[in-house]
Amino acid sequence: MSPTPSLHGFSLVAGTTVAPGGRTFRAVNPAGGEPLAPDFHEASPAEADRAMRLAREAQATFADATGETRAALLEAIAAGIEELGDALIARANAETGLPAARLTGERARTCGQLRLFAQLAREGSWVDARLDPALPERRPLPRPDVRRLLRPVGPVVVFGSSNFPLAFSTAGGDTASALAAGCPVVVKAHRAHPGTAELVGGAVARAVAARGLPAGVFSQLHGEGATLGVALVRHPATAAVGFTGSQAAGRALHDAAAARPRPIPVFAEMSSLNPVFLLPGALRERGAEIAAGLLASFTLGVGQFCTKPGLVFAVRGEATEAFLTALATGVRAAPCGTMLTPGIRAAFLANQARLLAAAGVAEWAGGAGEPAPERHEARPVVARTTAARFLAHPELAEEAFGPFTLVVEAGDGAELAACAAALSGQLTATLHGTPGDLAAAASLRELLAERAGRLVLNGFPTGVEVCPAMHHGGPYPATTDSRFTSVGTAAILRFARPVCYQGFPDALLPPALQDANPQGLLRLVDGRPTREPLAARRAG
Amino acid sequence: MSPTPSLHGFSLVAGTTVAPGGRTFRAVNPAGGEPLAPDFHEASPAEADRAMRLAREAQATFADATGETRAALLEAIAAGIEELGDALIARANAETGLPAARLTGERARTCGQLRLFAQLAREGSWVDARLDPALPERRPLPRPDVRRLLRPVGPVVVFGSSNFPLAFSTAGGDTASALAAGCPVVVKAHRAHPGTAELVGGAVARAVAARGLPAGVFSQLHGEGATLGVALVRHPATAAVGFTGSQAAGRALHDAAAARPRPIPVFAEMSSLNPVFLLPGALRERGAEIAAGLLASFTLGVGQFCTKPGLVFAVRGEATEAFLTALATGVRAAPCGTMLTPGIRAAFLANQARLLAAAGVAEWAGGAGEPAPERHEARPVVARTTAARFLAHPELAEEAFGPFTLVVEAGDGAELAACAAALSGQLTATLHGTPGDLAAAASLRELLAERAGRLVLNGFPTGVEVCPAMHHGGPYPATTDSRFTSVGTAAILRFARPVCYQGFPDALLPPALQDANPQGLLRLVDGRPTREPLAARRAG
Repeated sequence: MSPTPSLHGFSLVAGTTVAPGGRTFRAVNPAGGEPLAPDFHEASPAEADRAMRLAREAQATFADATGETRAALLEAIAAGIEELGDALIARANAETGLPAARLTGERARTCGQLRLFAQLAREGSWVDARLDPALPERRPLPRPDVRRLLRPVGPVVVFGSSNFPLAFSTAGGDTASALAAGCPVVVKAHRAHPGTAELVGGAVARAVAARGLPAGVFSQLHGEGATLGVALVRHPATAAVGFTGSQAAGRALHDAAAARPRPIPVFAEMSSLNPVFLLPGALRERGAEIAAGLLASFTLGVGQFCTKPGLVFAVRGEATEAFLTALATGVRAAPCGTMLTPGIRAAFLANQARLLAAAGVAEWAGGAGEPAPERHEARPVVARTTAARFLAHPELAEEAFGPFTLVVEAGDGAELAACAAALSGQLTATLHGTPGDLAAAASLRELLAERAGRLVLNGFPTGVEVCPAMHHGGPYPATTDSRFTSVGTAAILRFARPVCYQGFPDALLPPALQDANPQGLLRLVDGRPTREPLAARRAG
Repeated sequence: MSPTPSLHGFSLVAGTTVAPGGRTFRAVNPAGGEPLAPDFHEASPAEADRAMRLAREAQATFADATGETRAALLEAIAAGIEELGDALIARANAETGLPAARLTGERARTCGQLRLFAQLAREGSWVDARLDPALPERRPLPRPDVRRLLRPVGPVVVFGSSNFPLAFSTAGGDTASALAAGCPVVVKAHRAHPGTAELVGGAVARAVAARGLPAGVFSQLHGEGATLGVALVRHPATAAVGFTGSQAAGRALHDAAAARPRPIPVFAEMSSLNPVFLLPGALRERGAEIAAGLLASFTLGVGQFCTKPGLVFAVRGEATEAFLTALATGVRAAPCGTMLTPGIRAAFLANQARLLAAAGVAEWAGGAGEPAPERHEARPVVARTTAARFLAHPELAEEAFGPFTLVVEAGDGAELAACAAALSGQLTATLHGTPGDLAAAASLRELLAERAGRLVLNGFPTGVEVCPAMHHGGPYPATTDSRFTSVGTAAILRFARPVCYQGFPDALLPPALQDANPQGLLRLVDGRPTREPLAARRAG
């Protein structure tokens, strides 16, 4: 597949490409190893500063834009991405090795979530408007008129993610939720798919211009995470950061943000083993089916999902042995796959080798095919160990990002629970059980609820539904802030803060707080939710 | 006033007083200077560890308690505080120098907010339940059943505050909101009012026991912030921290929390100048009235409020001169007052002296009375400077916690706006203006909305209403996390995180997420708010 000829290779600051200069790099096709034209130019510190300053200057105008304006912007971005057509899929495929079908699905998800946030912005109740009208007769003191709503925090820096070149990158969930909230966005494009980023970034910039918004609402820069990325996090104009990636990189951004003169929040979604607990009744009833589902889940996208199940726990016994046999049969027949980048593959092989070399850990089954190094392939592998080993060696609970999972066998239910208790924070935790299993496992469920953001019952954690009830987050080290999600409509809450208006006349209040409720929002009035307008206020 | 004879002077770990040991200290009566019996014993590191471990052990039981149980606990605490009667007011008066009338009012506020959080816990909709039922027929992929709610984060460490011995200390807003959320609480008592803390802590512990809850739900420790306080923040069992106090101490706690292996949030409410902007029309119409209101606000509680107005901005002219004359007259007649502690008084005098010694700053008027050092008194002072000086010297915007305010005169409206633009994050910003003033000051309002958590119009920032719409927070350095409030019902959101349940049968879901909506909560179903039960789900 040939690279798209129209790519320019430059960063985009507030609607205009920046002059060439500094170092250049090329994307690499992981399925072939060849560098892809054109050269991409790293942004200079001055360009990063300019992007942030222009974002800051655009902030007030964009914060004042109506929900309808923001919705129209998000819809125009979605339409613009769709208009890129096959060229976008082709370039993303060349840069990531992900199959066209997967990328087509990811594009649909990306545009779907842009439109979901458009709906949220248009409807408007997400601002959590609260009105406590004045009580001038109250004793001992009158109550003033107090109203509050959520306002955008200011410019958000978004880091493109290697494993979702569309859905968690230039116009992915972080960008969609930040724009929906009314925050300008500066994207640090991922170096693995700069051409994809350029194509999508162009669509965003065109949509910003078409809606008549200040160009500073969107910029996208190419460069290194450790230099450009950290500089963006440290920039005084930056108000918040969205990141999906490794624990080391996420923690570095968190630490840089916390050490600023004015600390800012970093929403880093980093690392998760996504433990799966297989209870005895379920293994007896449908062990082979669970094995097939687990195989599909841990090898999906060559194991490169943040929700990939990397740890599986079961109690030793006949049913577990049968499950393991079925799993081994499946794994041996599973194909090798091209990983996203040479670096990700190297890290995966090193982590997998470390885990397989640990005392008491053995490979149980691996894909029969030979991975082609020139296609940066990896083969799926299942390893086995005991709960005693797992409990004694916390390093067995470190992530190997790729098609690898470790089955941990416990002697009994108590040891299974001990394994759950030893887990650190997770995006997800999964249970397979019959009604009888589950009734007997109440304390295990509680242990997992304390440690995970999402509990999956008799299913698998990969495939994150984008909906209001989704929570894609979890205690550290799954994320740096367990109170917020990066998927679903609640993601908008990361980028807003309350502002309270006391004693304001109606005309000076934001429409969301005005007596007549002109936007028809669901509001909390005197602590009670209602869409009704406020009864006419007393004079004075 | 004699100290209450029944005080024991010990920390309270999970319902029992801890053995004496380590260093001791006494409270000091700031109005007389004499140490107050009894000796208070500092908690050892082992006791701090035990308090946190017992809090951690109580977590699951308390998280599972119903809203009704938590409500009854909060109401029992309020009743217990009221039962302490005059002895509590007397001890708090002896320890803080605050007048009995103020303390009686503060007690009413404290009990009022405990009961407000009881209502919130009992009603239950604060858990923000969201249900997206399964769509098995959806194409290309079926949608799983996804539901989420907010769950308590775990043990919360609360730091008692010197300036609110009741409302922001042992059973103050942080404790009330954490308990309402279902989080065990460990209080680090403030050293300035340990007896008040002991009395209130006893009421809390008795309420915990009377409701049959694990004693680890509440502990209270005496000791130094820099040692005991930091140890509590660093303890692995601590999930979040509530703090009200100085910027230096709050930042130290924030930094310690951010540097943990598992970072945790610190909600520190720290420092605010609470700027007041006086527009020309308002000064012409009611300059004397504004002067009287400002005097009352900046001297309230001897200036020891986080919302004390410490900066006043106006455009030079006749009306401003008349306002300043009226203010000077009022200040000269204003009495001296006893400050909370010798340390707070020393810091105030030093900060005030530094500000008055700055080039271009002059005292404009001061209280005519002579402050009595043995009563740790301070006199109210107003100083004057120019906007040019203010803009050139950022150190003029540093807080002097006490009865001091600095009036800054601008040459014109543009310079006034430049002063607003130079401000850092604030809890509040206040505007006085006629309708005409305000219409002409749209950009000034926007500048202030970007920098403050609460905007007050034609009023004064002191006196923080406890209600659903209140936001007591603001951009750094007003707080360490501008997205959360420490006053009002939304304060509960600091201590909860979402947990999502995917594919769970009704019987295994928390009641808040069950089809029948047994608690009658307002929930988001398919993105739409409703109290209706869910229609019967399809089989399977």
